[in-house]
Amino acid sequence: MATRLQSSLRLVARQTGATLARTPVWNRPVAWATRAAFSTNAPHLFAAPHGKVPFTADKYPHMKRDSTFKKLSEEDVAYFKSILGPSSITQDSEDLETFNIDWLNKYRGQSKLVLKPTSTEQVSKILKYCNDHKLAVVPQGGNTGLVGGGVAVFDEIVVSMSNMNTVRTFDNVSGALVCDAGCILEVLDKYLEERGYLMPLDLGAKGSCHIGGNVSTNAGGLRLLRYGSLHGTVLGLEVVLPDGTILDNLSTLRKDNTGYDLKQLFIGAEGTLGMVTGVSILAPKRPKAINVALLGMDTFDQVQAAFKRSKNELSEILSAFEFWDRAAIKLVKEHLVAGANDPLESLHNFYVLIETSGSNKDHDDEKLNAYLEGLMGDEIVQDGVVAQDTTQIQNLWAIREGIPEACSKAGAVYKYDISMPVPVLYQAVEDMRARLVQSDAYGDGKLFTSVIGYGHVGDGNLHLNVAAEEFSNEATALIEPFIFEWTAGHSGSISAEHGLGISKNNFLHYSKSASMIELMKRFKEMLDPNGIMNPYKYLPDK
Amino acid sequence: MATRLQSSLRLVARQTGATLARTPVWNRPVAWATRAAFSTNAPHLFAAPHGKVPFTADKYPHMKRDSTFKKLSEEDVAYFKSILGPSSITQDSEDLETFNIDWLNKYRGQSKLVLKPTSTEQVSKILKYCNDHKLAVVPQGGNTGLVGGGVAVFDEIVVSMSNMNTVRTFDNVSGALVCDAGCILEVLDKYLEERGYLMPLDLGAKGSCHIGGNVSTNAGGLRLLRYGSLHGTVLGLEVVLPDGTILDNLSTLRKDNTGYDLKQLFIGAEGTLGMVTGVSILAPKRPKAINVALLGMDTFDQVQAAFKRSKNELSEILSAFEFWDRAAIKLVKEHLVAGANDPLESLHNFYVLIETSGSNKDHDDEKLNAYLEGLMGDEIVQDGVVAQDTTQIQNLWAIREGIPEACSKAGAVYKYDISMPVPVLYQAVEDMRARLVQSDAYGDGKLFTSVIGYGHVGDGNLHLNVAAEEFSNEATALIEPFIFEWTAGHSGSISAEHGLGISKNNFLHYSKSASMIELMKRFKEMLDPNGIMNPYKYLPDK
Repeated sequence: MATRLQSSLRLVARQTGATLARTPVWNRPVAWATRAAFSTNAPHLFAAPHGKVPFTADKYPHMKRDSTFKKLSEEDVAYFKSILGPSSITQDSEDLETFNIDWLNKYRGQSKLVLKPTSTEQVSKILKYCNDHKLAVVPQGGNTGLVGGGVAVFDEIVVSMSNMNTVRTFDNVSGALVCDAGCILEVLDKYLEERGYLMPLDLGAKGSCHIGGNVSTNAGGLRLLRYGSLHGTVLGLEVVLPDGTILDNLSTLRKDNTGYDLKQLFIGAEGTLGMVTGVSILAPKRPKAINVALLGMDTFDQVQAAFKRSKNELSEILSAFEFWDRAAIKLVKEHLVAGANDPLESLHNFYVLIETSGSNKDHDDEKLNAYLEGLMGDEIVQDGVVAQDTTQIQNLWAIREGIPEACSKAGAVYKYDISMPVPVLYQAVEDMRARLVQSDAYGDGKLFTSVIGYGHVGDGNLHLNVAAEEFSNEATALIEPFIFEWTAGHSGSISAEHGLGISKNNFLHYSKSASMIELMKRFKEMLDPNGIMNPYKYLPDK
Repeated sequence: MATRLQSSLRLVARQTGATLARTPVWNRPVAWATRAAFSTNAPHLFAAPHGKVPFTADKYPHMKRDSTFKKLSEEDVAYFKSILGPSSITQDSEDLETFNIDWLNKYRGQSKLVLKPTSTEQVSKILKYCNDHKLAVVPQGGNTGLVGGGVAVFDEIVVSMSNMNTVRTFDNVSGALVCDAGCILEVLDKYLEERGYLMPLDLGAKGSCHIGGNVSTNAGGLRLLRYGSLHGTVLGLEVVLPDGTILDNLSTLRKDNTGYDLKQLFIGAEGTLGMVTGVSILAPKRPKAINVALLGMDTFDQVQAAFKRSKNELSEILSAFEFWDRAAIKLVKEHLVAGANDPLESLHNFYVLIETSGSNKDHDDEKLNAYLEGLMGDEIVQDGVVAQDTTQIQNLWAIREGIPEACSKAGAVYKYDISMPVPVLYQAVEDMRARLVQSDAYGDGKLFTSVIGYGHVGDGNLHLNVAAEEFSNEATALIEPFIFEWTAGHSGSISAEHGLGISKNNFLHYSKSASMIELMKRFKEMLDPNGIMNPYKYLPDK
């Protein structure tokens, strides 16, 4: 048994040239920081990816500008200059491009004005003016969203939070961090690292995305399995309502049962009810020990079996359980994603990345070893490595985080982000692939080149990517609404973490009942009667 | 050093007669179940506590019945009988008492009718009828609330969820439990125990309280430190709006970003916006190992030091960090709370109960031992025991859980439940005591007999109890609004977990700004335009 384990589960990553060993050698504690630093090279920086076929823009042939909105005038600009100063305003057409195009290069707005307030009071004045004059507004954070929610559709004014990026307070006893909405997630995480804490969320776009955008889109990401959603970790918000009212609810209390928990409505509202200008969030202690293992498996049943066991055996130290498929690893290898080298010898149908984080390295190692040996003994895993140092941890994560970049290089990518019960998670990929094959639309020289599945097993969250030669109505019709109907038929959500924006607002009925949607509209109507906040998005077209 | 530890930190509870040992002997894994079973003897069962002075009822001399509400007629009762059947209706005046008096025996309603629907459809019909006819309604769960939120004020109809108590589904992979709102918390926990999971919340009233009531009051309790608040663990709700609309949002998905997260508004709304009829909640895996230690300390600074270290050293296995003071232990001893025997030799100024729960007993023991030895070595703790078996764990918890019962036996108890930054947590008790001493109102034969402090250090949540000879305007005037002003002055919340009900609704402005309260009123007005849901409570009097 020991021999079998030794030859099969290579517990030392190969590319280091280190000797194989049955028991992993744990050299030193690994900080999250190094991983964070590394992944700033990932594709989340603002740079449009380049596929074989240029992505199209202006995707809204069916839409018309709402004529009740005022068109921007010189007087309006003069007013904004008077409250912000000229340096906080962008009107130059080249500079505007950065704010008008989303990073998928899929959605292009026609905004003529970007405002960059430096204070909550300025935001309040901006919104009050826009509301009084019926000027439509798009709140924008790091512009890393995937559903077109952060860019204008027509000529809305972009209000960028990039100039509000200060940490306001941090309580070293409780871990409560209060900061401006425009703080970059990774910057906050580094700030906390120096104080022994970490941000309770982590995602590929960390180097660019704003915490305000994270809150407004209820970002999930890689640590949700461990630290839960923002509905639990956000302690308070400062929000400016469309009429300019500042809702100051920047509580740092862990418990507060005094009235309706209003902040919750703005978490995930994608800027349609107001603008989040400040965030109070509970940071957990930074783990002292991190382990990362990469496993190769044959079937999704094995992935599920490994997941169930991890909940039992790794329980409180489990911090990530990610998976991807053969199509994903092939793209990562083909497009040579920087830093992402597959240490496993042969290709596998499924890959699982497991991360543990805890307060005692020896204990964590012992738990992880016992778990992995169990998986080997029961032939649930075919091959695997455990990272021994920071570099190896970075490398393993780089594979997982490099998948979106690799997909984008494969052509025009239709991205879906669905959640459902874990047992049917991969069936979505298989059914989609079968459908395209049956339609004779899949393979070399055909409409689609690849169907890729990856995601967060622990959250029942699948990222289904379909790579096409180019975006076209013909291609779209083969995928949609099939994928949404499939999801609804399996009690799933058509948007697990990416949100609705302009790409899924009209599919909301697949996940929410008519009475729920009706009530959502009443909330919107109540808080934003003129509909100036991020129009054309989120809720279904009228 | 070893000797000192041996004599001072008695790691074996004395009442068992076991030999003292430097290192604790860890006999066997302890299940949560035994503790739960045990604590059904705690004072949370529906039984009015008996103090030296009978508690008064009818506390609302300043209030008038809202004349816009219809008075109950025979026709109304006939309608309810036609949809519910006669066995689901209570009109007998003796039977009504149970529903009209809260368990503190402090608030007494005058309801003439209790309805016990057996389905969501029945609840929908009830509310639609009440809304159409302007009959006021009080939703009631286990009637274990502490702020008078669950009983009628005047003649409102009580809608009790006691007949809706079925588990609907449980997903053994994800841990998602879907059940009726009337399920008793402890029953659910036992159901989950058989399946290897546990409820993510735990509180003294577990034997009587309903999960629907827990959700409606955003109950906190003993496990919040580990599993977070219900805003994070509740996956979905089924809610009947005042007009009878059934909002079906019983999602079992961990991630779902499709529209406003409407369920969040009903968490902690105390039945003022609608009735929660079904709950979907994420249950964590049941820990395999539980340890409980009781420590005696001299100062609150030492309590804080121990807490800070526990976050570092026990981190992911820490599941409770409770404290109480000398006044609390004296009352527990004096009133001989069943099962609660103090194993420490002498009285201490402060007591800390620490619980760890994890997946590996050896690892947990090692972490806890190292932590406790560190506290001893640095003279942070004066004395302490670690429970060695289930009985001892039960005994230590019984002290903590017996404090409310002991307080209620000390007389008429003014109960406050405030949260604030940990460093000033105990100052609230000291300042209150000093105020009463200075007023010459404290001591034998005086207005007040005891000021007791206990609570959840990990959540910054203090339960401040002031025991008086009897409830009186004179006594009240010495405490209120002093305590609310004190709390507001220390950036705290005047209700950390108990809610507002009728006891704190008019003090809401101490914790929330005028604009926040104004928005709350707009939400209430929108969802319950006739104001039939739990009137006279929660929001400030008009």
